[in-house]
Amino acid sequence: MSPYQSLREEVYEANLTLPKRGLVLYTFGNVSGIDRRAGVVAIKPSGVPYEDLQPADIVVVDLDNQIVAGKLRPSSDTLTHLLLYAHFPAVGGVCHTHSTYAVAWSQAMRAIPNLGTTHADHLTAAVPCTEVMTDEMIRGNYELATGHQILNVFRDQQLSYREVEMVLVACHGPFTWGKNPAKAVYNSAVLEELARMAQLTLSINPAVAPIKQALVDKHYFRKHGSNAYYGQEGY
Amino acid sequence: MSPYQSLREEVYEANLTLPKRGLVLYTFGNVSGIDRRAGVVAIKPSGVPYEDLQPADIVVVDLDNQIVAGKLRPSSDTLTHLLLYAHFPAVGGVCHTHSTYAVAWSQAMRAIPNLGTTHADHLTAAVPCTEVMTDEMIRGNYELATGHQILNVFRDQQLSYREVEMVLVACHGPFTWGKNPAKAVYNSAVLEELARMAQLTLSINPAVAPIKQALVDKHYFRKHGSNAYYGQEGY
Amino acid sequence: MSPYQSLREEVYEANLTLPKRGLVLYTFGNVSGIDRRAGVVAIKPSGVPYEDLQPADIVVVDLDNQIVAGKLRPSSDTLTHLLLYAHFPAVGGVCHTHSTYAVAWSQAMRAIPNLGTTHADHLTAAVPCTEVMTDEMIRGNYELATGHQILNVFRDQQLSYREVEMVLVACHGPFTWGKNPAKAVYNSAVLEELARMAQLTLSINPAVAPIKQALVDKHYFRKHGSNAYYGQEGY
Amino acid sequence: MSPYQSLREEVYEANLTLPKRGLVLYTFGNVSGIDRRAGVVAIKPSGVPYEDLQPADIVVVDLDNQIVAGKLRPSSDTLTHLLLYAHFPAVGGVCHTHSTYAVAWSQAMRAIPNLGTTHADHLTAAVPCTEVMTDEMIRGNYELATGHQILNVFRDQQLSYREVEMVLVACHGPFTWGKNPAKAVYNSAVLEELARMAQLTLSINPAVAPIKQALVDKHYFRKHGSNAYYGQEGY
Repeated sequence: MSPYQSLREEVYEANLTLPKRGLVLYTFGNVSGIDRRAGVVAIKPSGVPYEDLQPADIVVVDLDNQIVAGKLRPSSDTLTHLLLYAHFPAVGGVCHTHSTYAVAWSQAMRAIPNLGTTHADHLTAAVPCTEVMTDEMIRGNYELATGHQILNVFRDQQLSYREVEMVLVACHGPFTWGKNPAKAVYNSAVLEELARMAQLTLSINPAVAPIKQALVDKHYFRKHGSNAYYGQEGY
Repeated sequence: MSPYQSLREEVYEANLTLPKRGLVLYTFGNVSGIDRRAGVVAIKPSGVPYEDLQPADIVVVDLDNQIVAGKLRPSSDTLTHLLLYAHFPAVGGVCHTHSTYAVAWSQAMRAIPNLGTTHADHLTAAVPCTEVMTDEMIRGNYELATGHQILNVFRDQQLSYREVEMVLVACHGPFTWGKNPAKAVYNSAVLEELARMAQLTLSINPAVAPIKQALVDKHYFRKHGSNAYYGQEGY
Repeated sequence: MSPYQSLREEVYEANLTLPKRGLVLYTFGNVSGIDRRAGVVAIKPSGVPYEDLQPADIVVVDLDNQIVAGKLRPSSDTLTHLLLYAHFPAVGGVCHTHSTYAVAWSQAMRAIPNLGTTHADHLTAAVPCTEVMTDEMIRGNYELATGHQILNVFRDQQLSYREVEMVLVACHGPFTWGKNPAKAVYNSAVLEELARMAQLTLSINPAVAPIKQALVDKHYFRKHGSNAYYGQEGY
Repeated sequence: MSPYQSLREEVYEANLTLPKRGLVLYTFGNVSGIDRRAGVVAIKPSGVPYEDLQPADIVVVDLDNQIVAGKLRPSSDTLTHLLLYAHFPAVGGVCHTHSTYAVAWSQAMRAIPNLGTTHADHLTAAVPCTEVMTDEMIRGNYELATGHQILNVFRDQQLSYREVEMVLVACHGPFTWGKNPAKAVYNSAVLEELARMAQLTLSINPAVAPIKQALVDKHYFRKHGSNAYYGQEGY
């Protein structure tokens, strides 16, 4: 039995959730998970359809992107995932999709404003959108540069990756993360719904403004932190 | 056998209808039912996924929100439900969702105008939208205040909760009710469709006005009241 | 065996197609069929959910709307169907739904312009939209008046009910018809798709104009009339 | 056993993918495949519902559109397919649908701009839209003229059919192609998603411009050509 079997199965299951939740067409998305003690990341192989995927197909790489286990090539986005793991130490899973509404906001190069409590239940700020990359970044190590664009927008806007677990890469699409691969996928599904709600809200009332800070705080801290009272112990 | 078993099963079934009708993502909604003779309300437990839910998980509280039966924490929105039951004496079930189009109108802070007979078949007025809460209300007993915002908009607009069984809470989402939990869910599904039809109608003709009163009356009273001639006896 | 069994089964099957095609929510639609030799129309009973419907529930009425067979109340829209049968002698089935996009155009009180070949494959004109009824019509025999509004728009625009098998009733929704109940439902599904395509087309290019007459003629007569060359004999 | 059995089965399977991917209503689409050594094209029969289709129903024609095998009439669009095969020598499959969003752009007579990496992953240019046909072309050999309109837009815009495997026919809808019938259908599904993403992007930010050339090149050549590093050998 491979020493990475449980990590691979966890990552495999999280990847299969993408088509079930309607977040991907064909192979347009990937999920990874990290075992920080072992120093390895397991990730979807590049270009393999979800319906063909087996747990043993999940590629295991070390933190320098060297393949440790698996016969297939890892996702072409692996370097982006690795950079996020390196800078976001509490993160256990990362997810990237081309889900329709989140891509539309990314292509529109607009942050998704916090327009209601569905948004505030999950994050305290607008979903940030990165700057467009320079030509030099694109022609250099593109996937690493994608990760740096994400780090840059979090630095520039002084955002916490623990309170904002999602981002839009301009002209591209969303990345999300969480304590494990399943939570990263959960955040991708939530982001897609927030993106859809915001697009519809603006079509009904183009002049709408973000909700007031008291409402953001109320909903976010109802679900997060030591005073949270939503949900059950152990869920 | 629990004395509340039939109420719990009714509330359980109504909650399961939410994902079947596409009205919820993950745990974003809850249905309750009341037994007015016993003085108890049964409601979904907070944060439990619908696919994991069992009838015995449904929490039973008294009208002061004290748990009477059940091992789980009740929905964080329970106080809103209880206030509606207290002020709307003919109501037997209450439903709250974050369904996409109804949320979009709530976030747009716009009442849904009565633009056609699908709307008039179900209610005589625009679907009202509450005022935004003050910071004091948000920082106080928020869920109770949510209920008061609903009562306030019904009072201010002189609406009957029997003729208008749905409301939008500004920046948040819809609440609906009815003679029993299943009817409350029915109203949530109808509201979502009315919200979608109205958004599309305005995108085709932004200058459209609400329908004439004679048409409202005709359709509403075709289905409601002593002269109704829609449907069958006993349905 | 009822003398109307085959008609009832045909109407029953056509009604069940409505939820399968996503054209109805709950009980928001009805299909009928006529046996012109027997002088009877079979129609869905009012307010009965499709999943509960049985062939024996289909109500048979004569052309004066007197029940000939069946224990339930016929659709509240029966008089509209009967008027269409009386004035459109080649029609064998009529369908009424509240499908989302067709209702949106009805509520917008706009005819659906002929913007492409999908439309021209099925009809030679814009999908007409009736005038709004006067208060007198609404307060009188409303369902009969609904039928008259349809006849009026066909008369005023000099449309052939054989070349245009669909109409929007202003502030209400679509009616369609065809040589039999199944074809009437087919036309409702096509209309919903035309309505959706047109709404999206206008959102991309608000200045778009209807297609040229040569293209209308080419596509319509590719599928209809003695020079048609689309499809197979016997389909 | 027919000498064309494997081609017919390949074309049959590709046609069945159309309803599975939500790209067609009723019979509104067709896929063909070519056997260039045998000099034959296999194509869906005209007007036959996908659920009734059998491999033996697939019609085999030679390059002059004479039926070589099959008892049914071939798709009315066969001449368009044949012209594309004649001028695009590396193409093995052609697909035509009336998918909703691609039709909306065709009806809007607008090329789909390259707004993001999902688009650039698949083609290097905007999805071109043909000119509207003259009345003479429409009244002459219409289906052949449809093919010529496609060739014309590729010639006028100096596009490579190998780098741009999709086109919008103005007022009509999309045609796509690829190395085999399955790849042609894949391109139809991708086009529909690109069309949807672009419509939503413009609704969020009407002033958005196409992405920079460096990003187009990066994403396209990540997946195509000798330096591609996306996917697996043999997929």
